[in-house]
Amino acid sequence: MEVAQVLHMNGGSGKASYANNSILQQNVISLTKPIIEEGITSLFYNMLPTSLAIADLGCSSGPNTFFAVSEIIKAVEKLCQELNHKSPEYNVFFNDLPGNDFNNIFKSLDNFKGKLHDEMESRIGPCYFFGVPGSFHGRIFPSRSLHFVHSSYSLQWLSKVPEGINNNKGNIYIGSTSPSNVYKAYYKQFQSDFSYFLKCRANELVEGGHMVLTFAGRRSNDPQSKECCFIWELMATALNDMVSQGIIKEEQVDTFNIPQYNPSLSEVKLEVINEGSFVINRMEVSDVNWSTLGNQNNDFYFESKISKQLSEGGYNVARCMRAVAEPLLVSHFGDAIIEEVFTRYKEILANRMSKENSFINVTILLTRKA
Amino acid sequence: MEVAQVLHMNGGSGKASYANNSILQQNVISLTKPIIEEGITSLFYNMLPTSLAIADLGCSSGPNTFFAVSEIIKAVEKLCQELNHKSPEYNVFFNDLPGNDFNNIFKSLDNFKGKLHDEMESRIGPCYFFGVPGSFHGRIFPSRSLHFVHSSYSLQWLSKVPEGINNNKGNIYIGSTSPSNVYKAYYKQFQSDFSYFLKCRANELVEGGHMVLTFAGRRSNDPQSKECCFIWELMATALNDMVSQGIIKEEQVDTFNIPQYNPSLSEVKLEVINEGSFVINRMEVSDVNWSTLGNQNNDFYFESKISKQLSEGGYNVARCMRAVAEPLLVSHFGDAIIEEVFTRYKEILANRMSKENSFINVTILLTRKA
Repeated sequence: MEVAQVLHMNGGSGKASYANNSILQQNVISLTKPIIEEGITSLFYNMLPTSLAIADLGCSSGPNTFFAVSEIIKAVEKLCQELNHKSPEYNVFFNDLPGNDFNNIFKSLDNFKGKLHDEMESRIGPCYFFGVPGSFHGRIFPSRSLHFVHSSYSLQWLSKVPEGINNNKGNIYIGSTSPSNVYKAYYKQFQSDFSYFLKCRANELVEGGHMVLTFAGRRSNDPQSKECCFIWELMATALNDMVSQGIIKEEQVDTFNIPQYNPSLSEVKLEVINEGSFVINRMEVSDVNWSTLGNQNNDFYFESKISKQLSEGGYNVARCMRAVAEPLLVSHFGDAIIEEVFTRYKEILANRMSKENSFINVTILLTRKA
Repeated sequence: MEVAQVLHMNGGSGKASYANNSILQQNVISLTKPIIEEGITSLFYNMLPTSLAIADLGCSSGPNTFFAVSEIIKAVEKLCQELNHKSPEYNVFFNDLPGNDFNNIFKSLDNFKGKLHDEMESRIGPCYFFGVPGSFHGRIFPSRSLHFVHSSYSLQWLSKVPEGINNNKGNIYIGSTSPSNVYKAYYKQFQSDFSYFLKCRANELVEGGHMVLTFAGRRSNDPQSKECCFIWELMATALNDMVSQGIIKEEQVDTFNIPQYNPSLSEVKLEVINEGSFVINRMEVSDVNWSTLGNQNNDFYFESKISKQLSEGGYNVARCMRAVAEPLLVSHFGDAIIEEVFTRYKEILANRMSKENSFINVTILLTRKA
């Protein structure tokens, strides 16, 4: 499986689309907003740029695509007013893999610009928007061309499924029954990918440029911790049930592994220090409880609505995971079984999720060294 | 009708797609290749840039999207070898209206890059690709950010249908029966649009930056000349036949006008001189005979195949015009009548086209004044 060819969030704006099932990722950006503001404020005070190049890596397609960029522009405009400084020219780069639904982003741009102008009391600087197709596990921007990089809930995706995990039977990610070589291979792939990511961005950012990166991660030092593995174990349960009923073949499940790694804060920190191009300004771990994933509406400034029942939570977590994982599953299992997988997964989630289940977010603010 | 919302070439890669019906536009770029090479050579000798920003405006989605850019990069690499100069970093910007099928472009990029590398004997400089959604009848790039702008068969599209042409009855463009106020209104809109286009690009290009612009134009001084109007008159004939048979309403045809103007070389020249930001380096008129529009294949380095029969020509011209005009027609007439319109149009074309019918291309090479 070529991850860069296969991985993308569900496109369009239908019922199963990422655009309509991304309140988790929206909550995460909201939670990390103070760090984003800290980063852009520090950058702006130090540089006072007349032209500001902002990139959102793994922007996907939906309300969240514009959310972080919108917060960044609003923060800069506030600073310009405080400092009585002329607004910069904004160059905004939306990056994702080539399979992402960029058409949907581009068609929503006018709406986004209209809302942004409506929200601001004064005129804002001219904004230019660009789509950048390609994997952030490689160079995607010219040298020294960016001031500020944001990426949320994307960097846990690996460039490929780790090698040497053929013995990860019955699991589709690191599971409680995975042999130790499996999580070691996953960790090794994460180290290699994240280190190269840092190297690429170090070439693309100007000196003093900032990055705010949020991973779907974990608190525990144990990579087999339930807090990051349980959600995929439940999906494996759905697939294994279908194996036992003869709907899919055991071999199909055994050869399917999610190209993702949920790092701990110390694992992220270690790679930044080893790579050496960046200073760490801030690190933070936060979490979003599964049961708080309410239904979102189509607006990109919606409020999180807390569902009261865990069964609703199960339904919403299943939809959220479907928007993320469906293209990967389809590429491996075909699309005939997808409805059934997610019907089963929804039920399993509703039955087995508890008040304690959360998504863990690891956020880091970095500055490109001179 | 909001042109920027409605106008786009037929997307995807199906039978009626622009990608599969754009051999005319391909022929035009081939014809103007010497001027493109002259422009990029002049630019490169004068600047020897380490980073080269190239924009293709109205890039559409299909083989042609990559054709001009590919020629530009190959010309620069040849110069680098001759001069023993290090290859620059290429920043390539593909621009079109937000309704364009950018997803299709982005999914074809790997294939394009692969072919480009295969064709070159040596390594080429690193290439970064960007999609830029928005109308070139306004600012779409940061100030002083571009070195070379190319646009082929796009600038004849106006920002809107001219005002005050309610009396253009029975026509959908300037026709032989159009009152004089109609072509005056079209010309005025062209002047206003092209002048503002030049002003915008003058802000976006670096000093000494170059532009190669090709219009679907005309040789004659008469804006009602058959050489640019006939093809639309035949489409109007198809629509008027459907009016007389009660399939569509007369009022619908009377209120539909194509937002396009086919300028003469002297009209283009006049606006460049009046606007004042650019020096004219070269001007040229060329033509592509209707009957030479053979079937193209999907490859982006296909050869033109000359059809022997004009009836085939009629078929291919109809497909070419459909790929261009279908979204405009659908937005006004709905999609129920489209098959019928083009079945009739194809027949009318086959019956009435002659060996003399050609598309006329007006090409101009400009340099941004210091």
